[in-house]
Amino acid sequence: MEYQIRLARSEDCKDIVRMIRELAEFEKLSEQVEITEEVLQKDGFAEDPFYKCLVAELQPEQRSTEGFRIIGYALYFFTYSTWKGRALFLEDLYVMPEFRGKGIGTKLMSKVAEVGLSLGCTRLQLSVLDWNQAARDVYVRRGAMNMTAAEGWHLYRFQGDALKALAEGTMKA
Amino acid sequence: MEYQIRLARSEDCKDIVRMIRELAEFEKLSEQVEITEEVLQKDGFAEDPFYKCLVAELQPEQRSTEGFRIIGYALYFFTYSTWKGRALFLEDLYVMPEFRGKGIGTKLMSKVAEVGLSLGCTRLQLSVLDWNQAARDVYVRRGAMNMTAAEGWHLYRFQGDALKALAEGTMKA
Repeated sequence: MEYQIRLARSEDCKDIVRMIRELAEFEKLSEQVEITEEVLQKDGFAEDPFYKCLVAELQPEQRSTEGFRIIGYALYFFTYSTWKGRALFLEDLYVMPEFRGKGIGTKLMSKVAEVGLSLGCTRLQLSVLDWNQAARDVYVRRGAMNMTAAEGWHLYRFQGDALKALAEGTMKA
Repeated sequence: MEYQIRLARSEDCKDIVRMIRELAEFEKLSEQVEITEEVLQKDGFAEDPFYKCLVAELQPEQRSTEGFRIIGYALYFFTYSTWKGRALFLEDLYVMPEFRGKGIGTKLMSKVAEVGLSLGCTRLQLSVLDWNQAARDVYVRRGAMNMTAAEGWHLYRFQGDALKALAEGTMKA
């Protein structure tokens, strides 16, 4: 099995959406997926893209059992630390189950880190679900720190009516 | 006391760095601050900026007791959810102690939410330290959800040697 890691193109969005759904299913949160191929294309491949994406692609003559050539992806974007400056956030890292254990996820992640360092980023961050012990173990073994445990950072989110009320200044004091 | 909320300009970076340090001191993590005025200028006010910033500025004839006109800031950037699309992350929200309790922080936050909604973002996220109960209470009262508690998201970070090893593919398997 041979594959290459390359920057995603607009026409890869169909495969990326398929894998986003597979990953969300694994995370037991697939009812939350609303993204579409069209939105992904507009947000990632117009001017001022909102994200960057790498894909792992099999050689032309090779296919997954279901006939796919794109078998993994890493979707990331730039963030900013007011203490350390430029940083990267790895939103999704995914390899299709039948291609796991071959180092493809590692390659994808390595490439993201390389891009980050080359642009002066000093951090690569990601969120992991606490029950996903396998993933947590891998990241820790590779030197990541759990900042929620180490310093106590919790993630808060406004969305829907709460976000609207915030913008309109009509939320509770 | 009158003030306006406006987009930060390059020449505000001196004030922004001053307030970044004040905020980090409050968070008891000020030894981590490495940012400089020059880096903030380069990363926020060249082409393809890495962050956006709003400041709260007093009217010309008014000053803080130490002589400052810029008395608060909100620093944010765009992120991306592969489930929901465009999102905003509020990295820092700060108002100088002598100007608190007047709704300035709320105004800053409200403006950030407004910007986000106008650009199609469906989420505004932020990280809060678990011991900062006052901040947590405010965000929850205003409708934010603690995603670390609700779904179990933990923040992991690669930096320094771990990030380098990742990029070079020399980390442990």
